[in-house]
Amino acid sequence: MSECLGRASIRFKQPVYIIESASVVGKKEGEGPLGLLFDLAGEDDMFGCETWEEAESSLQKQAVGLVLEKAGVSAEEVNLMFAGDLLGQSIATSFGLAGYGIPLMGVYGACSTCGESLALGAMTIAGNYAKNVICVTSSHFASAEKEFRYPLDYGNQRPLSATWTVTGSGAFVLSAVRDGKDNDSYLKATNVSETKKTNMSNGARAKISGITIGKITDYGLKDSMNMGACMAPASASTLERHFIDFKSQPNDYDKIITGDLGSVGQKILIDLLKEKGYDISEQHMDCGIEIFDADSQDTHSGGSGCGCSAVTLSAYILKQLEEGNWKRVLFMPTGALLSKTSFNEG
Amino acid sequence: MSECLGRASIRFKQPVYIIESASVVGKKEGEGPLGLLFDLAGEDDMFGCETWEEAESSLQKQAVGLVLEKAGVSAEEVNLMFAGDLLGQSIATSFGLAGYGIPLMGVYGACSTCGESLALGAMTIAGNYAKNVICVTSSHFASAEKEFRYPLDYGNQRPLSATWTVTGSGAFVLSAVRDGKDNDSYLKATNVSETKKTNMSNGARAKISGITIGKITDYGLKDSMNMGACMAPASASTLERHFIDFKSQPNDYDKIITGDLGSVGQKILIDLLKEKGYDISEQHMDCGIEIFDADSQDTHSGGSGCGCSAVTLSAYILKQLEEGNWKRVLFMPTGALLSKTSFNEG
Repeated sequence: MSECLGRASIRFKQPVYIIESASVVGKKEGEGPLGLLFDLAGEDDMFGCETWEEAESSLQKQAVGLVLEKAGVSAEEVNLMFAGDLLGQSIATSFGLAGYGIPLMGVYGACSTCGESLALGAMTIAGNYAKNVICVTSSHFASAEKEFRYPLDYGNQRPLSATWTVTGSGAFVLSAVRDGKDNDSYLKATNVSETKKTNMSNGARAKISGITIGKITDYGLKDSMNMGACMAPASASTLERHFIDFKSQPNDYDKIITGDLGSVGQKILIDLLKEKGYDISEQHMDCGIEIFDADSQDTHSGGSGCGCSAVTLSAYILKQLEEGNWKRVLFMPTGALLSKTSFNEG
Repeated sequence: MSECLGRASIRFKQPVYIIESASVVGKKEGEGPLGLLFDLAGEDDMFGCETWEEAESSLQKQAVGLVLEKAGVSAEEVNLMFAGDLLGQSIATSFGLAGYGIPLMGVYGACSTCGESLALGAMTIAGNYAKNVICVTSSHFASAEKEFRYPLDYGNQRPLSATWTVTGSGAFVLSAVRDGKDNDSYLKATNVSETKKTNMSNGARAKISGITIGKITDYGLKDSMNMGACMAPASASTLERHFIDFKSQPNDYDKIITGDLGSVGQKILIDLLKEKGYDISEQHMDCGIEIFDADSQDTHSGGSGCGCSAVTLSAYILKQLEEGNWKRVLFMPTGALLSKTSFNEG
C-alpha cells in the first residue's frame, strides 16, 4: 500500500529498490569529468551503426544488456520495460529493444523521460504488478540536433545559452527485493514458485521512497537554444510541490539534483525558489553541468537530453549513494515541457 | 491488491471504473457510420486553429474539457493524466493540456497509445495511487500524413492497403468508484476528507478488469502504407498471450476489438490466430473498419491512428457495454510497433 501525499505525490510504503544500473555514452561524454565512471564509452558516436538513429537504438540495447548482466537477472525475469528516447515516435526505443522480448510501455517526457520512466517503474513495483522492471532512456547528440535544431551539416553557430545533447543511455533494474530474485510480497500476490537468492548481486544500489509528478509549466519562453530558462520555472514549481507534499525542507536532502538546466537555468531555479522561501543553493547540483567541462569541452551551458540525467544517475549519483557519501537525494530530471520528480534514499 | 497472471498480464482485484468518456472528431469522421455517436464533430479539421498541430492540441483540450463536464468531476479532483498523440514529441499533448494544471505523464505507443494510457491509468487506480485519472489520446489526419507519409500538398496517390489517419481525440475518466467522488479505498489510504456523492453522474460506463501488455513484434514488414499487415502479427501474439494468461477462449467475449488493423490486417489476424487454435472470426471487430464507410468515404483499408480506437471506444464500444448489448469486451488497440490489450467488463 502506498500513501498519496496531496495530488501529485506518492510515498511508497513497500520498498522499491534500484538494484542495478548501467550507462553507455558517446566519445565526448567519455572524455568528460565523469568519463571513467561510465560502464561503456564509444570510440565514436556511431557504435558501429550506419545512421544516428540506429546508433541510438544500439545505445539502448547495450545499456539494457549490461544492466541485466550486472544485476544477474535474465530478460525473462523482467515483467515490464518503460522506455523512451528524445526522438519522435520512440524510434530508437522500438528498434533497439525488440530483441529482448520484454513487454514494453513507451514513455515520452522530453528531457524528463528518465524521471517519468523511474516513477512509473516504481509505481509498478510498489503496486505489486511486477517482480522486476527495467527503465531505460536515451538521447543522441546528432539525432537530436537533426530533429530539434539544425542538421549538423548546416554549420550554424551555437549561442552560449545552448545546451549540448548528451549521447548516452542509462538503464535501471527496479525490484521489490534487493537482488531482484527473492520476492515475498510478489510471491504472496501471485503464488509463483520461489526462486533462490543469487550471490551475483549482493544488494540494492538505492531505494526509491517517493515521487512527485510534474505539471506542464509554460512561461512563454519558446527558445530551443535556451532550454534551461524554459525549464527552470517548471522545476521550481515541482520542487515547491515536493517540499509541501512531503513536508520537507532543502536541508533534509544531501543533494537536490536537476536534469539538465545547465548553468543558465540553475541560476534562475535558485532565484525562483528563494522567492518562495526555499534556499537550495547549497544542495543543488545539475546533471547537465556535471557531465561536461564547459571550458575545455566547448559545451556552453552544459549537457541536456534524456540521456544526460540517466547516465549521470547511473554512473555518479547512485555511486555516491552506494558509498554512503550521500544519504538522501532528490532527483528531478526536467523536460522543456514536462517535469518529474523522483526521490531516492540510499 | 492485484493478481499478476504470467509475465505480461494483470487482473485487477480492486475495481477500476471508466466513469465517463468523451469524443471529439473531424468532419470526415462526423460523416461516417458512427458520426451521430460522437460528442462533437468539427465543421472542418482546423477547429479554429491556424496549424494542424494546434488543431490536434485543441482536439485533446476539448475532449478533456468535455469528459470532466460529463463526469461532473473538476480538474482539481484529477490526480494524474496519461496523455499521448501520434506526433513526435507529443506536441499536441503538451500544448493542449497545459491549461488544466493536472500532473501529466506522456506516453507513446503509436496507434496503441490509447490502450497504453488506459492500462497505466488502470494500474494507477488499482494501485491506490490516485482517486481519478484521465487518459487522453489523439491523432490528426493532416499532421500525421505530414510526419509519417507524404505532406498532403504532394498529391500522392494512396494505395488501397493504406489506412486513413483518424482526426479525433478520446478522453476517459478512470476512478476506483462509480462516480469518481466517494472513494473508500482511497480515503483509507490517504485520509483525505470525504466528499459527498453527486447525482450528476449516476454510474460507471464500464469496468476494466485486467490488462495484457504487448511486446514489440516485428515481422520485417516496413511499409507505412500497409500498416495492417505490419500490426497483425503483434496483435495475434498479444491476443494469444491474453487467452493463455487469463485462461480464456474467444467465446468468453462478446466482442474482441482491435484498434486499426483495417480490412487487410483483419484477415491476417484471423488466419494467424486460427493457426494457433483460436477462432475469433465471429467476435472480431476492428475500430478502423467501423469508423468509415470504405465505399462511400474513399478511406481504402480503414481508419488508423491513436484517435481511431480512442473515439470508437468512447462513442460506440462503451455505449454497447452500457446498454447491455455486450457484457465482456476485449479491447486491443495495436500500434505498428507496439501492442497493448485492455479488457473491459460491463
